[in-house]
Amino acid sequence: MQERSCALVVIGNEILSGKIHDTNTYFAARELRAIGVALKRIAVIPDELDAIAEEVRYCAQRFEFVITSGGVGPTHDDITIAGVAAALGRPVVIDPQLEALIREHFGDQPNKAGMKMAEVPQGAVLIEGGPMIFPTVQVENIYMLPGIPQLFEGKLTALKPRFATDPYFVRAIYTSAGEGRIAASLDACLERFPKLLLGSYPKIGNAEYRVKLTLESKDSDYLDSAFHYLLELLPADVIIKTE
Amino acid sequence: MQERSCALVVIGNEILSGKIHDTNTYFAARELRAIGVALKRIAVIPDELDAIAEEVRYCAQRFEFVITSGGVGPTHDDITIAGVAAALGRPVVIDPQLEALIREHFGDQPNKAGMKMAEVPQGAVLIEGGPMIFPTVQVENIYMLPGIPQLFEGKLTALKPRFATDPYFVRAIYTSAGEGRIAASLDACLERFPKLLLGSYPKIGNAEYRVKLTLESKDSDYLDSAFHYLLELLPADVIIKTE
Repeated sequence: MQERSCALVVIGNEILSGKIHDTNTYFAARELRAIGVALKRIAVIPDELDAIAEEVRYCAQRFEFVITSGGVGPTHDDITIAGVAAALGRPVVIDPQLEALIREHFGDQPNKAGMKMAEVPQGAVLIEGGPMIFPTVQVENIYMLPGIPQLFEGKLTALKPRFATDPYFVRAIYTSAGEGRIAASLDACLERFPKLLLGSYPKIGNAEYRVKLTLESKDSDYLDSAFHYLLELLPADVIIKTE
Repeated sequence: MQERSCALVVIGNEILSGKIHDTNTYFAARELRAIGVALKRIAVIPDELDAIAEEVRYCAQRFEFVITSGGVGPTHDDITIAGVAAALGRPVVIDPQLEALIREHFGDQPNKAGMKMAEVPQGAVLIEGGPMIFPTVQVENIYMLPGIPQLFEGKLTALKPRFATDPYFVRAIYTSAGEGRIAASLDACLERFPKLLLGSYPKIGNAEYRVKLTLESKDSDYLDSAFHYLLELLPADVIIKTE
């Protein structure tokens, strides 16, 4: 199966200004990885129509699907729906099913803020599931999720079967040597195994190890061969443990 | 003084794949805010030359300055220098001062990995200060910082006086009502105080409050007037506390 590519667009002045510590991107990165989706880009942009439209358009054209986080509530700064509509050059319309849901909730006379929640980009479809009665709005390859972490996580979890493909296999090597001393071994390993995804992550002030190496592939035999080849290349005295 | 705008470009497959939980963006967002810099965009992109070049070029043209995080070490996946050089259409050259530093460290015969650390985009300048002997490389309005959190934080802290302008003033109101019930008050407040930056952040499963409202301005009198105006507009029984 072909790997699917994905981008995450986080809409939120509160994150850019450091008032809120975003956790949705880390959650999404791990969950998507686990189901074999390649997250290729994360963008955090302000609550501004043009910025949303430009970034969503860019991502929707380049990646198989796009997940947005935030800006779908009833307040003045919730303009994700309008931004996504602008990205696609479509109008914002009232969805009859959402309108019915809101009338059920607010009674027959919902206020202006409530009715805002019934707006969708023209051509949107609704996806049931997850922690709210309120469905996820999808239009083309764009899925609009709420920014509140509990809701974002629940909605993304509910969408996972729709996104899943084949997963990566991963091995890790922890070394006591710095990157300078092992860089040549890494280069040699990649020359022999060019399709290996090889990561090198130094940790400072850690008594346990200095560099964590991660090896990844969708082919478990290829990964195994590369893993043992690299173990041979590295100076034996620097290897602390493997996973 | 004019507000300065900034973008943060994080280079790292390890963050996109969820292997490392990025903390640099949250640190930078708070620190920049505190010195009056408007962080307008965060992009997390893979260790790929074209992706780095495109994103850095985009940001360098639109914002007053750009900070990159990651990809400046000695290993195969450290290609930020090459990416930034490509963004500006310049070659990568060896910086004599960095070369001297590295020869001091590795002896007269530094290995290939060590010499990689002496590479800079043509026209770069070096900025001393922070937690390493190794200086920060700057070219045009782009500052290239290491991705390891302790180093990133130290380097950014050392650069702060260079970026500082005038700060924002902030007030906060915590309410027991949901966004639906207070949205009209927020709209009315913004109509009277259009220059107010007004944020609304619902918290779920929190016994203390339901929505935190933040009011911001660089003009403390304007902020004070807007704050008291909004307090009058909100139903008295929903206000839990103010800051």
